[in-house]
Amino acid sequence: MTKTVYIAGLGLIGGSIALGIKRDHPDYQILGYNRGEKSRRVAMERGMVDEVTDDFAAFVSQADVIILAVPIKQTLDFMEQLAQLPLKPDVLITDAGSTKLAIVEKAEEVFANKAIRFVGSHPMAGSHKSGAHAADVNLFENAYYILTPSRLTNSETISELEDLLSGLHVRFTQMDAAEHDQVTGQVSHFPHVLASSLMLQAGDYRDSHAMTQHLAAGGFRDMTRIAESEPGMWTSILATNKEPILERISDFKKRLDQIADLIATNNQEAIWDFFDQGRQIRKEMEIHKRGGVDSFFDLYVNIPDEEDEILKIMELLRGTSLMNLRINEENREDIHGILQITFKTQADQLRSKEIIEKATDYQVFID
Amino acid sequence: MTKTVYIAGLGLIGGSIALGIKRDHPDYQILGYNRGEKSRRVAMERGMVDEVTDDFAAFVSQADVIILAVPIKQTLDFMEQLAQLPLKPDVLITDAGSTKLAIVEKAEEVFANKAIRFVGSHPMAGSHKSGAHAADVNLFENAYYILTPSRLTNSETISELEDLLSGLHVRFTQMDAAEHDQVTGQVSHFPHVLASSLMLQAGDYRDSHAMTQHLAAGGFRDMTRIAESEPGMWTSILATNKEPILERISDFKKRLDQIADLIATNNQEAIWDFFDQGRQIRKEMEIHKRGGVDSFFDLYVNIPDEEDEILKIMELLRGTSLMNLRINEENREDIHGILQITFKTQADQLRSKEIIEKATDYQVFID
Repeated sequence: MTKTVYIAGLGLIGGSIALGIKRDHPDYQILGYNRGEKSRRVAMERGMVDEVTDDFAAFVSQADVIILAVPIKQTLDFMEQLAQLPLKPDVLITDAGSTKLAIVEKAEEVFANKAIRFVGSHPMAGSHKSGAHAADVNLFENAYYILTPSRLTNSETISELEDLLSGLHVRFTQMDAAEHDQVTGQVSHFPHVLASSLMLQAGDYRDSHAMTQHLAAGGFRDMTRIAESEPGMWTSILATNKEPILERISDFKKRLDQIADLIATNNQEAIWDFFDQGRQIRKEMEIHKRGGVDSFFDLYVNIPDEEDEILKIMELLRGTSLMNLRINEENREDIHGILQITFKTQADQLRSKEIIEKATDYQVFID
Repeated sequence: MTKTVYIAGLGLIGGSIALGIKRDHPDYQILGYNRGEKSRRVAMERGMVDEVTDDFAAFVSQADVIILAVPIKQTLDFMEQLAQLPLKPDVLITDAGSTKLAIVEKAEEVFANKAIRFVGSHPMAGSHKSGAHAADVNLFENAYYILTPSRLTNSETISELEDLLSGLHVRFTQMDAAEHDQVTGQVSHFPHVLASSLMLQAGDYRDSHAMTQHLAAGGFRDMTRIAESEPGMWTSILATNKEPILERISDFKKRLDQIADLIATNNQEAIWDFFDQGRQIRKEMEIHKRGGVDSFFDLYVNIPDEEDEILKIMELLRGTSLMNLRINEENREDIHGILQITFKTQADQLRSKEIIEKATDYQVFID
């Protein structure tokens, strides 16, 4: 049975979801809303959607499924509008926001006692690019796609949504909305607060310590990379996930007090344990594991800093699928100035090591 | 005039320094000390040193220059030993430690009123590898090599040391030892405390929120990468740079209070400014620049995720000197899946953009 899916927001997320739906359900009709003209045009040109509108209300009554892939504030606003509009009976509504409790609570409030099914969604992938031109059918591949059921969700709702989105090749996971916000508060929202705070601190320190500007190197760069994220999105995230983030800030201050106490009393054994525990825990996290969010098989090659050295290595590895490639170039205490190649499989990693070792006299490390 | 240089510690740092000295001064005699047998053997095999010993005192009296490339604690201990040993008049002693004030103060104490010249050194590069087998003549290329003069330093000392180390191709910079420790406290030591604290916090959070283990992704990974550093080295750094780090912890807690207040009062405008300022400041830092003067010159190419696509681009750019090359691959909220190429010059960047646009139909961004 074919379906009509209405996607509001044809940016990176909405556009990529549209492409994923088309992949497994080429017969489904996809309607799209976007305020800006450019992404509407690109979405039509790329065949992501069958029809587009700049009037959100226009297509809502035709939809079996409505996906709100717009910023959090607008998602909340559209939900209020939907509650007032004529919809198909048992329409399935979902979203794509980075926080979930505020959205689920809004749904349970405005959609109560209506023939509306609602489940919250958080596809955990993204980009610093935006717009329909950046949409990619593989954007979510192997990513977690969190579903947060509401009182307006039943088990059929979940399986229907998972079937609709099967072409995204994601890993569906169900979580309570509040739990989702607490966990992402810990691993994503609070770290953004930390990174920006560190950046502002270093910025102020420059005024009296000019070399701060110059001596920040690899570790500092890694720690502050996310401080360059788009401020609007993160402001909305903080605004809709206050309590968990405030609680993490408060907990973190206590941790800073503890380590400060160890430093002040020169308790080197406990400081050693502090660093060692951090190292151990990180190794246990999924960020380290094969088949996890980011599964990595790295090879380090000690190439000279010369033209065409990378090309030479790439030629040796012709036909091998690379996930990432990076020259660790600058002044850093924790990484060597070498070419780092990341493979999708361990087999490729080991085979490549052999190939490079045979063809060159460069040092090759697996780590 | 030939010289005899004695390097204590033939690990990554000492070994790389030895190779750098040999590059520009092949006639100098290099003597090496290392406690462990393996690095002694490798150092001899690789021709880094002319003679080795496992008895620190053995070669000190022959040396014109003594370089202590051992952990901070051992550096302090060797300095005390040197003060008691027969040395050549006007011997030049230096080190390679990550903190400087404790070492300079020790030198001024134990070498006072002796015919000894001392200057502190901090070569700002390193590796997650260690040992003589990882030593590399290019390890320090273009890195800052901080020299911290002491009361036992004169201008001739500095130029003599810079001449000795010319083959390392570093950027020598002179700084006051206390100022060095404050700046590195801000950009390196305190960030390590932050990263490990975040790691321990997330580790504890797992106990009551199991998905913490799984949902940590790109941003969290970047922020905690340095939490995997070797605990011993960082324990010594904290122990020898207490005050600056404690002061930064205290300052940071105030910053957390401020942002917590903005979140609690839902001051979205000020939160937006907080994130925006962090973003602005990061763009001004040298981590964004090349050589402290020129910018990095990045090009983003929207390549398909297919084998040999990178090779194809590399072939187009044959003969161009690349600084870095990276595929922004994974599921993350802040980066898109495209090839990022960093050039040393703007001319290369612009020329490469033209070449790729002519030869392919990929989107190419400068950003």
